[in-house]
Amino acid sequence: MSIQIRKAQAKDIKAVRDLVHELAVYENEPDALKADLNHYHEQFKAGLFNCMVAELNGEIVGMTIYYLRFSTWRGKMMHLEDFYVQDKHRRKGIGQKLFEAFIEDSKSQECKMVIWQVLEWNDLAVGFYDKYNAIYDKEWWNCKLFFDGE
Amino acid sequence: MSIQIRKAQAKDIKAVRDLVHELAVYENEPDALKADLNHYHEQFKAGLFNCMVAELNGEIVGMTIYYLRFSTWRGKMMHLEDFYVQDKHRRKGIGQKLFEAFIEDSKSQECKMVIWQVLEWNDLAVGFYDKYNAIYDKEWWNCKLFFDGE
Repeated sequence: MSIQIRKAQAKDIKAVRDLVHELAVYENEPDALKADLNHYHEQFKAGLFNCMVAELNGEIVGMTIYYLRFSTWRGKMMHLEDFYVQDKHRRKGIGQKLFEAFIEDSKSQECKMVIWQVLEWNDLAVGFYDKYNAIYDKEWWNCKLFFDGE
Repeated sequence: MSIQIRKAQAKDIKAVRDLVHELAVYENEPDALKADLNHYHEQFKAGLFNCMVAELNGEIVGMTIYYLRFSTWRGKMMHLEDFYVQDKHRRKGIGQKLFEAFIEDSKSQECKMVIWQVLEWNDLAVGFYDKYNAIYDKEWWNCKLFFDGE
């Protein structure tokens, strides 16, 4: 079994977007993915997000998508937007390798902290993050306005 | 009474950071502001955040801090990190002007949506956002790891 974690290239973006859709289904939001592949390519090229992929025997089975943000309290921070390993490939340490590669890249970019979100009912994910002594803020709501309809 | 909303310049950053501290006190987190003025200047210059200020008769009394993010579901979006008007200058429409300038700038940068957070107990803020038909997601927790101690 060969696991490789590496930065994504443009040729990987279709596979990455397919994993985003799988994750949306897992989160009970099968129709949530509205951004098309062309938009992904444009924004990846523009540097709006970083992406790492996990390859298992040469096949992409997991990914992280992350980017810089500015915390008014702490300063430069990295946000983990998506983090996914296919269900059938869990319990092989792939998620750990992906998450730790994200942490390392954030440190190398001189971030003060990393930040992400988890669904309150996702016990499996919370258990994973507990191992890293993650700190949870549970009293914030996410708010949004769409410009292009729901 | 003259209200002006404009993009911040480097000379405004000290006043903006002072407002961040005022907001932290309002949010019952008086010791939360760790990023120093030098870091603010560095990251503003690096383009890590956008900032608008509200001037009332020439004095800065409010601000927004915001930046681009990538939604894996929607694509390019703008995140409103901080939004504050001094208590004594509320009910003059300053918040509305600031928020709408943020929306306009986000549209002009071709964002698909805007996103921000609100504390669940902040009824005043929720009432404000309700007027814009904001959509709330209440089942996410914020997770973080600090690299430089708590």
